[in-house]
Formats: sequence, C-alpha cells, structure tokens
Amino acid sequence: MKLATIRTADGLTRAVRVEGETLVDLGLADVGELLARPDWAEHAARTEGPAVEPAGYAPVVPRPGKIICVGLNYRNHILEMGRELPQYPTLFAKYAEALVGAYDEIRLPPESDQVDWEAELAVVIGKTVRRAGESEAAEAIAGFAVLNDVTMRDWQYRSAMWLQGKTWEGSTPFGPYLVTPDELDGGTRPSLTLTGYVDGEVVQQADTSDLVFDPVALVRYVSTIITLSPGDVIASGTPGGVGHARKPARYLTEGSVLATEITGLGRSEVKAVAEPVA
Amino acid sequence: MKLATIRTADGLTRAVRVEGETLVDLGLADVGELLARPDWAEHAARTEGPAVEPAGYAPVVPRPGKIICVGLNYRNHILEMGRELPQYPTLFAKYAEALVGAYDEIRLPPESDQVDWEAELAVVIGKTVRRAGESEAAEAIAGFAVLNDVTMRDWQYRSAMWLQGKTWEGSTPFGPYLVTPDELDGGTRPSLTLTGYVDGEVVQQADTSDLVFDPVALVRYVSTIITLSPGDVIASGTPGGVGHARKPARYLTEGSVLATEITGLGRSEVKAVAEPVA
Repeated sequence: MKLATIRTADGLTRAVRVEGETLVDLGLADVGELLARPDWAEHAARTEGPAVEPAGYAPVVPRPGKIICVGLNYRNHILEMGRELPQYPTLFAKYAEALVGAYDEIRLPPESDQVDWEAELAVVIGKTVRRAGESEAAEAIAGFAVLNDVTMRDWQYRSAMWLQGKTWEGSTPFGPYLVTPDELDGGTRPSLTLTGYVDGEVVQQADTSDLVFDPVALVRYVSTIITLSPGDVIASGTPGGVGHARKPARYLTEGSVLATEITGLGRSEVKAVAEPVA
Repeated sequence: MKLATIRTADGLTRAVRVEGETLVDLGLADVGELLARPDWAEHAARTEGPAVEPAGYAPVVPRPGKIICVGLNYRNHILEMGRELPQYPTLFAKYAEALVGAYDEIRLPPESDQVDWEAELAVVIGKTVRRAGESEAAEAIAGFAVLNDVTMRDWQYRSAMWLQGKTWEGSTPFGPYLVTPDELDGGTRPSLTLTGYVDGEVVQQADTSDLVFDPVALVRYVSTIITLSPGDVIASGTPGGVGHARKPARYLTEGSVLATEITGLGRSEVKAVAEPVA
C-alpha cells in the first residue's frame, strides 16, 4: 500500500491511498492523522473514497512529533573512509519546519553557501512503542519513504553539534509517499537501491541493506530512550558521495535540481531556489 | 505575571495565572494553548476565572513544538575550563516526551548509571518569528522558567552527538511557572541567581547575566535558521558544577532529590526514582 499527503486546490491537505494514477481520498487531513488511528492500515486499505486531484504533494507526514536523524550508517562508506564500524548509532534531530513536499522548491538561505545533499531512507512509525523488542519494533514500522537530509555544512560545523546545519526551514524533501513494508524487498529491513542525483548526474548510490543499524534496530534503539509514536520519522543516514567530501567540494546553487530515488519508494525532485536577503 | 499549567483532579490540565496562593483559571488546557493566542498576554492578565485547586504541576508548556538546548554558554565556566569563548552557540535538541512537571519524579532508567544534572534558565517563545531583529526577538520572549536538562552521560558520549543522552523519557523538570520579563531584573536579559541542589547541597550556582549568548541573542540566532513559534522553548545552558566533571564523578541515584531554583522564577524539586527493568 502506498499512502501520501496531497495538497488540494482549496489550500488544504488530504491523506490518500495511491492506486497507480488514482489517488483515493481517505477522509483525513494527512498521513500523520491517519497513522494516529490504531486501525490505520485497515482504514487505509478498505476506504473507497472518491478519487482526488492533487494540487501538489505535501511532506508524507507534514508535522511529525519527532524527526530523529542517524549519522554514519552506511557500511561501505564508513569502511572506505578508513573508520571502524560504530558500536552505537549517532543520533541528532531535525524539526518539522525543515520539511517540504517531494516536488517543492528547497530554499538556499543567504546565510549559507555550503548547501549539500544527503539522500536517505526514512522510516515512518505507525505504533506507539517503548523499549521495543525485535518483533514489536518491526510491527511499529508503518512504512518507508524517500527523504533528503539537506545540510548547510558551514552551519553544521560551526559548533560540535550538527543540529544548526540540519534543520533549516524548508530544506528537506520528504516523500512523495510512504510504502508499507509488505510491498518491499526485505520488508522491514528493505534491500532497495537509493540514488541521489544533482542536475541529472548520479552523486550517491547505495543499497539500503548496507545500513549498519537497520530500521528494526533503529526503532529498538531509539525506543529504549524515548517513546516512539505514530507519525514519528527516523531518517536512517546517507551513503558516500556528498558534495562536501568532494575535491573540490560541490554544493547546491540557484537552480540546482536535487532528485532522490529509492526503488519502490518513488522519487522526489526539488529545485534549489535562492531565498532573497530579508 | 506568572503562568502555569496545573493538573486537575479530573486528570486534565488547565492554564492558570498565579496570584500568590490563588490560581486563576484562564479557560484553556495549558500554557502552550494560551501562548498560541495572539492576545495571550491580555487574555491572561484580564481573565477573572474561578480559582482552581491544583492536583499537581505539569510542565509549563507540556508539548512544545521545539525544545532547543544550548551547550557551553556560561562565561565563567568556559573560562575556568581554559577554553575560549565560542563564536557561535552550540545547539542540540530535546523532545517533548522528556519533560516532567516541577514536582514530579524523574526516572533513572536501568540502561544508565550516569544520570547527571544541568540547572538551566528556559526561554519560552510567545510570538512567531523568523530572522528576528533585536527588538523583535525581545518581544518574542513570553517569559522564563526553571528547567533542568538532566543528562545520561554514558549515553551522551556514546557517539559524537549528545542527543541520545539528553532526551530520555520523563527526565527533565520544567517549571513550576513562566514569569513574564517585566517582572524580572534585567527583563529579557535577566540577571537572576540560578542554583542547583542535590539532596539539599548547592552543586551549581551562577547569575543568568553570565550567559555568553543571552536570551535575545539566542532567539535571533535560532530564528535565523528556523521559525520560532509560540510555546517553543530554548534551554539556555548550564554553568559549572555538574556531577560528571567532579572527581570522583557524582550522579543521581535512587531517592536523590534534585532541586533547581532561579530567583523570581521559583523552584522545582524532583525525586529520582529507579525505573524497574522491563
């Protein structure tokens, strides 16, 4: 099952089930509201609402209660940099204001000239869990979606903590849709090809089965610390190929087109637009 | 004006104005809901609702949209450690699930044996601002409250990012109440004595005017990156005296009483209680 939050002509949003070209109205404002229902999977599968025309795609979950990001999580990339595999995941946060829809523009703020890309697999939570065991963690995963953890590198490295480079307003495409694990190779530990493109050129590529901490392990780990709730998002980390690590370094500029694709999860494609200086 | 979110006997919460011993019902569920009203200050000042009896104090804002924490922000402490004053604030996050009321218990999870204290001045936002100038930033501050950024040091240092030591469920007392800047020495740049106690012994003490990045500067800085909204919280950092830096190190244990006090902002006092192993 594919679920999305679309924008409608009246300026609102709707949760929909994606059936090929048809978007079936689920009678709720967004996928976050849908996932808050304990019967969300049945409701989404059975509803035969009218088809709706999208005026655009909103972030899959527009206002997650929590967005937890993971750093340094692709095995090949860690090993190629000569580092040891980490014993624990590296976790940091992003706030909901950072999210945009899969085909929106992303903003290049005048305060940064090092806006970089990080193609990622996002895990979306569908159940309330704390200290989840293995099967409970797997069952808490509603599905997966495409996300790009766009990062202002100059701000990321202003202090020892990355947050301020990771949560710029309107920087992070999330979607187009969520796909439930039953439709994916590998299920809750999906084996899917993740590809990042800048202006049509492949800049990142990896298989999501190369994660050191897979989605089930991440749900277990994070839920040890804090309750995970429906609509929460875990961005599972990015593989090699980011612009900051290139020689010379390469960043997004006015008009750059950033595409992020995961087999089975679709593709986001956003244009980078310079924000006017206030 | 002093504002609090109290728990009532029916298991719900109410926003109240604190008038000495009298708590005046403001007709809203909590201070977050109050601050979301553009006329919150007038509403809170003028409402003559019935007095209510508290069954307890909830976190001042129970579910802030964002909690932004600041590290390394007390001048004396940075200098005494032989470091240079930072050019930029160090920012990290905490999720709302970490908050508890000012007189609640805090949980010592079985997964950590290094639970430490960090007495802090919390800044509560009362207006929506982005890229706030000086006066706009000052006007966006609804008020201040006591917070203790209780930290699991072993988890904080598991990876390079501190988040996982900073956001344990039910770890962070916040309150008892918010006080508007007009009632405080120094207004939006308050000069108040911050004191942390463990089992009655003073373990931290500083003046809040010793902040490298004061509340107005923090609102300006954070709002450059992202929109600040009513109910958002900035925890402005802790001075020296934390348990982890002591020789030998000292941590909270079963039954420890952690009190946090700021002149004019009241005092929280929480007992540390070991969480049973699941």
